[in-house]
Amino acid sequence: MDDGPTSGNGRNDTARVETFSDGVFAIAITLLVLDLVVPHTEASGDLIRALIAQWPSYLGYVLSFFVLGTMWANHHNRFRYIERSDHILLFLNVLLMMFVVLNPFTTALLSEYLLGSNAERRIAVVVYSGVMALTAVVYTGLWMYASVGYRLVDRSLHPAQLWALTKRYLAGVALYWLAFALAFFSTIASLVIIAGLAALFVLPEPSIRDQESGRESSNT
Amino acid sequence: MDDGPTSGNGRNDTARVETFSDGVFAIAITLLVLDLVVPHTEASGDLIRALIAQWPSYLGYVLSFFVLGTMWANHHNRFRYIERSDHILLFLNVLLMMFVVLNPFTTALLSEYLLGSNAERRIAVVVYSGVMALTAVVYTGLWMYASVGYRLVDRSLHPAQLWALTKRYLAGVALYWLAFALAFFSTIASLVIIAGLAALFVLPEPSIRDQESGRESSNT
Amino acid sequence: MDDGPTSGNGRNDTARVETFSDGVFAIAITLLVLDLVVPHTEASGDLIRALIAQWPSYLGYVLSFFVLGTMWANHHNRFRYIERSDHILLFLNVLLMMFVVLNPFTTALLSEYLLGSNAERRIAVVVYSGVMALTAVVYTGLWMYASVGYRLVDRSLHPAQLWALTKRYLAGVALYWLAFALAFFSTIASLVIIAGLAALFVLPEPSIRDQESGRESSNT
Amino acid sequence: MDDGPTSGNGRNDTARVETFSDGVFAIAITLLVLDLVVPHTEASGDLIRALIAQWPSYLGYVLSFFVLGTMWANHHNRFRYIERSDHILLFLNVLLMMFVVLNPFTTALLSEYLLGSNAERRIAVVVYSGVMALTAVVYTGLWMYASVGYRLVDRSLHPAQLWALTKRYLAGVALYWLAFALAFFSTIASLVIIAGLAALFVLPEPSIRDQESGRESSNT
Repeated sequence: MDDGPTSGNGRNDTARVETFSDGVFAIAITLLVLDLVVPHTEASGDLIRALIAQWPSYLGYVLSFFVLGTMWANHHNRFRYIERSDHILLFLNVLLMMFVVLNPFTTALLSEYLLGSNAERRIAVVVYSGVMALTAVVYTGLWMYASVGYRLVDRSLHPAQLWALTKRYLAGVALYWLAFALAFFSTIASLVIIAGLAALFVLPEPSIRDQESGRESSNT
Repeated sequence: MDDGPTSGNGRNDTARVETFSDGVFAIAITLLVLDLVVPHTEASGDLIRALIAQWPSYLGYVLSFFVLGTMWANHHNRFRYIERSDHILLFLNVLLMMFVVLNPFTTALLSEYLLGSNAERRIAVVVYSGVMALTAVVYTGLWMYASVGYRLVDRSLHPAQLWALTKRYLAGVALYWLAFALAFFSTIASLVIIAGLAALFVLPEPSIRDQESGRESSNT
Repeated sequence: MDDGPTSGNGRNDTARVETFSDGVFAIAITLLVLDLVVPHTEASGDLIRALIAQWPSYLGYVLSFFVLGTMWANHHNRFRYIERSDHILLFLNVLLMMFVVLNPFTTALLSEYLLGSNAERRIAVVVYSGVMALTAVVYTGLWMYASVGYRLVDRSLHPAQLWALTKRYLAGVALYWLAFALAFFSTIASLVIIAGLAALFVLPEPSIRDQESGRESSNT
Repeated sequence: MDDGPTSGNGRNDTARVETFSDGVFAIAITLLVLDLVVPHTEASGDLIRALIAQWPSYLGYVLSFFVLGTMWANHHNRFRYIERSDHILLFLNVLLMMFVVLNPFTTALLSEYLLGSNAERRIAVVVYSGVMALTAVVYTGLWMYASVGYRLVDRSLHPAQLWALTKRYLAGVALYWLAFALAFFSTIASLVIIAGLAALFVLPEPSIRDQESGRESSNT
């Protein structure tokens, strides 16, 4: 009540932050297709072999599409909780977008050098997973900034819920940094962890769902 | 009434899924123009011949523009019926977008090799129609997931209406797979079917319209 | 009143058509920057000359940016009047977008061959103005389809207002076709007309403004 | 009250201007990633050196991302105050977008020639800062057009607030023109000023915040 006008403006702010972020996610995810190039073959009949030889590009495309898809869905779900915005949140979100937008570049790097020498493959996976690890840090920082002390989040949320999400994101950060660290030793292991983290998106999230139903009842 | 808060959140969810999907469709459809390249001619006067020689690019551009346009309009109409969202729907929608975004790549492939050798043309059309056939499967799967047992759709819709749409999409899947299968034998036949499916977009849809008016009256 | 639910859905339709069109316009207009390429110079000190030599690219960029900006503003103003949507409108709008999206390609063609031979420059301007002339036809067709007999437009609008807009668009079509026809004889004259049509955007529109104030008072 | 319908339409206008501008900002900022290209190395082990040698590209990416991010946030905050739109505002906004969209080009120019000869570097920074200086002029012009005499802004805003923003933007214009002028003598100094202006985004804005709280209380 007492923060009616502020929260009204804040709400508006968040809506436009969401629109901007949705746009950036949508464009970054769509630009991934520019990493797929039509092969120019000399001899007829080589086209199918040339297309198949590009499999690292398809792998990179699918992997990055799902990673960005996961990030987008997460961002989307979190901004349902974040009700107000301020200067720092805008800055953190621009920083987050800066890392999100890097993905078409790091994906192209991964696709190009996945079949290169051991050294090249390692560098490509280190850069690819490193950008993701940094993204996870910024994303978690943004969430913690918004949620600590109910700074910008919906005040009707349970402290346990906020803490569950914080723990979840901190675990994500730890796993992305593990993927980054592993990239120096085993590129396969690193990519498997990243694929696994994206695959979690497919599975239901029982714990969160329970909390949401808990929240619904607490609202009633 | 009893699902007020859930449906409120769900509605919000669907709105943002639509915004994201609209963005991805708009970008993917616009990136098709990148397949049109300005020819660099040596001798003056060759420009018009060079531009005309690119006709497969224009054909691919028009065909894919209408196919994606149809998909977008369909997606748009279906999300008027889908009122709630969940994790699986988000995943299916990301998967759908992954195939939608492939179109600028498969269109470039088609444009480049439509005038190639028989083998090259066949491969290009197989890939082009194959991605569309997979897209149709994912799209129909998304619709069936949302509509079976009124899982996520508007509960005031007639069962007959839902079933009519499901039948329609299953027929679309069958025709896209026919186009895919034909591509191995006759690339022309395959492309004609795809163009025909997109052309259906131009014609009125009497059956659906009747059902909608039926729905309107049932609402009154 | 009696068409409450229909108009409700129709309104929703129009909103999403606008969102999609805004997206396509925004992307097409932004892709124009891809026609500006960084020159690679051998000798130091040549950079400034190389940048200046690219002036046709800057001219094409500015011209097309304003033409697309004009089109977007017009589309935006007209969809304030169009309240309902149907299958044909969606189709006409996809067709319109297909021509809008061509602009980064025709602009690149114009930029590349504006300083070419007479024949090349003529072909480039013919294609550039031809796509605009077709766009104007589709746009006017869309407007006439929506407005004739108040098919899809706001029923509280004055007939004189609708007719004034139709006349205005028909005049635009005539001028764009004049620009197209002139391109075969004088490329300069053709481009001057196109620039003039875009420049009208800058000037106030007294006739329309009067009608709008007339409309406001008729609403009261 | 007396301008109910106008303000209703105007509000709508502003919403769509914002949507369009958000789209253009989001696309222009995302296209910055296209300036980062995957190096093609001959000898294995050169990849890391080639990636590091591209540091001007990363610097340009980060700098332009934050500059455009700042501009977007500013645009977003100002359109909370602008309630109505007219033809001139639409024109000024298209002009503003024309300069915003140039940034991926000027950034690519900066990245490519930052390590070039002195003359090349100077030209690149002159163009880069010059486009920003022009952008600042157009942006400030748009704000002054909208705010002078409460032409298009919320009438409940304090004159002192509007004037504070105008002064702020005029100071920004002066600093961007200083950066432009310095570019002819010291490219480093020029870039430092631009980075500093973007960095102001990170810092809180106490003066504005005070005014906003003042506004809130004046609203109560």
